[in-house]
Amino acid sequence: MDNAFDTIATTAPFDTAKLDRLMDEARLDILIATSRHNVQYLLGGYRFFFFDVMEAIGTSRYLPVFVYQKGRPENSIYIGNRMEKFEQELGRIWTPLVKTGSWGTIDAMALAIDHVRRLGGAARRVGIEAGFLPADARDHLRAGLNDAEFHEAHFMLERLRAVKSPAELDLIREASERVVDAMMATFRSCAPGMTKNDVVARLRREEQERDLVFEYCLIAAGKSHNRAPSNQRLAEGDVISIDSGGNYRGYIGDLSRMGILGEPDSELRELLQEIEDIQQVARRAIRPGAMGGDIIAGGEAAVKSSPHRAVLDFTAHGIGLVSHEAPRLTATGPVPYAPYDADRPLERGMVISIETALLHPARGYIKLEDTLIVTESGWEAPGDHGREWNSSRLMA
Amino acid sequence: MDNAFDTIATTAPFDTAKLDRLMDEARLDILIATSRHNVQYLLGGYRFFFFDVMEAIGTSRYLPVFVYQKGRPENSIYIGNRMEKFEQELGRIWTPLVKTGSWGTIDAMALAIDHVRRLGGAARRVGIEAGFLPADARDHLRAGLNDAEFHEAHFMLERLRAVKSPAELDLIREASERVVDAMMATFRSCAPGMTKNDVVARLRREEQERDLVFEYCLIAAGKSHNRAPSNQRLAEGDVISIDSGGNYRGYIGDLSRMGILGEPDSELRELLQEIEDIQQVARRAIRPGAMGGDIIAGGEAAVKSSPHRAVLDFTAHGIGLVSHEAPRLTATGPVPYAPYDADRPLERGMVISIETALLHPARGYIKLEDTLIVTESGWEAPGDHGREWNSSRLMA
Repeated sequence: MDNAFDTIATTAPFDTAKLDRLMDEARLDILIATSRHNVQYLLGGYRFFFFDVMEAIGTSRYLPVFVYQKGRPENSIYIGNRMEKFEQELGRIWTPLVKTGSWGTIDAMALAIDHVRRLGGAARRVGIEAGFLPADARDHLRAGLNDAEFHEAHFMLERLRAVKSPAELDLIREASERVVDAMMATFRSCAPGMTKNDVVARLRREEQERDLVFEYCLIAAGKSHNRAPSNQRLAEGDVISIDSGGNYRGYIGDLSRMGILGEPDSELRELLQEIEDIQQVARRAIRPGAMGGDIIAGGEAAVKSSPHRAVLDFTAHGIGLVSHEAPRLTATGPVPYAPYDADRPLERGMVISIETALLHPARGYIKLEDTLIVTESGWEAPGDHGREWNSSRLMA
Repeated sequence: MDNAFDTIATTAPFDTAKLDRLMDEARLDILIATSRHNVQYLLGGYRFFFFDVMEAIGTSRYLPVFVYQKGRPENSIYIGNRMEKFEQELGRIWTPLVKTGSWGTIDAMALAIDHVRRLGGAARRVGIEAGFLPADARDHLRAGLNDAEFHEAHFMLERLRAVKSPAELDLIREASERVVDAMMATFRSCAPGMTKNDVVARLRREEQERDLVFEYCLIAAGKSHNRAPSNQRLAEGDVISIDSGGNYRGYIGDLSRMGILGEPDSELRELLQEIEDIQQVARRAIRPGAMGGDIIAGGEAAVKSSPHRAVLDFTAHGIGLVSHEAPRLTATGPVPYAPYDADRPLERGMVISIETALLHPARGYIKLEDTLIVTESGWEAPGDHGREWNSSRLMA
């Protein structure tokens, strides 16, 4: 541990008092975070560039590790890959202790064990992320700290991240605006004969030119409800649903907009208006102190009164560093989980994605998805443009 | 399991006889692959687009699972995310059985357990990838198959992938050529006053325009040996080391080239020539039947006879879907591991990266890294251009 004290301690970039309180509630003494998103959060946005895309290397994989002792931020350590010494030299890692000594899961965990042992008898209950801690690393950790109990820290870390800071909200605004701008540019370029793959390639480029990391594009066209990119060709009159995630410095913009090759007829206008009405009812429930479940109740009531209720999918979920995160509003929808925020008050700084899709048997897949930030007086909707039919003909 | 038989069985896209033999040697009955690279390999290149960048979603994460029974490719199953039904509809998944029913680690593993149980008593010894299997998934698997023994399958899977098919070699050629082309375009654009971040942003764009997924760029400039992108500004006369990985459909091009703002003086020319000489000696050892260790022995002998041996780093490693993979040639170098190919013959179709860096205390960080494919008569070097000093002035 000779060079454990390489960097100068600075202040933790997150709310340590809140983390301490959450650890108290969970009766945890030590937290060992190993997911990319939580490590990034606890390091104030830092993420090692070399492993931004890949994880496997050599006979193992990259495993960044952040260790926190309750009430003792000054004992925080970050354990990174050997090449992260370059990042450390540049002063990018805030933790008082930094070890850039690992190449794989076991050597990373060995450094974490050394550190926790040095903290002494306090390490009775240790929080881990079992979904983001490889089995071999967990076995090594358990053997190395054989008098400790291990508990899942997911819920606690999610609560810690649920209310975004002003700096985080700025990143979410940028991500949302830029994703929708990229979609508008993409719809303008759409023409009969292009494939869905072509459209996605264009969107990817438009997002990348706006300094977003393109994550994915779900795309449906014509009457089909299949949302995978493919060589399906666009034809005159086709509706095009684009649902894309792009991240700006880790924070995800995830929105859906509709395009059409030509002009929408009155039925298409009415269908999108129905979706829009549900979206608006749901967002009207948003303000600090409202229950998370109010958003769902509003949206679901609007769905129930729609003639298309049998083919409507409505859902809402938190969004940030993870594309479905707290607040957890409903157990239904694409990603099922316990809706533990349904009965909790919304807080200023939470970020919510609201989505309504209509799977019309004859007219295709029609969807809007919006991002809402809980503000002092209600909500703010970054990237709220382009929510009508975007006609390639009228835009060109 | 009602809809387990959705897709029509086609042929396995890998050498099942070789996998069966490797499983025999390892005495494995069942293989459960969960790493992105091995699942992609076993699915013949298929990778679900939605989780290409991110892994976390909801309260867990994406976990693709491929299960193979020794000698029974017709019992192979792929377990994917619910949205992969779109990919399945398009016929992109070869396995006779497909279940697109998971959102997280536990439900994915529950489907794998169901499948293995249906195979009956054959599942005594099960191969897993413990570095790529989350701890919670492994616990669930162990509880669900409580009469099975679990063994690490990394070595076996790496052997399976070590000799590349003609189609894989084409992807590696493309990746290597395109990465170097992108570097050449980037060097042409370099000018005093630009930062290392600017150079990396340009390289990223140049790679993306060539349909590569940009993975990383290690960059050193001037006299510094720090290889992280930063706001360090380029000055007239600076040497620039660019070491970048970009993947083409998953296969990594990883090469290093040198640029200079101006023209190299005779010392710089000699330094790069020394590196070039070491690189050439090392590659001359490559041919089918030569021992993997011959590459290392050649390179190390050349290093020893160099006046700069104290500041030279030489290494070689296999490359493909993983940036350091089999053949494993040396225990030294940036990523340490057992050099188990040092005493094994090279085979046609293996791919080797050879790298030599000179950390000159006064002239900066100077490096070449090349990709070599083992051919019938020796080697082939895709992306072998730009190995001299690339002067922004002379190129512009």
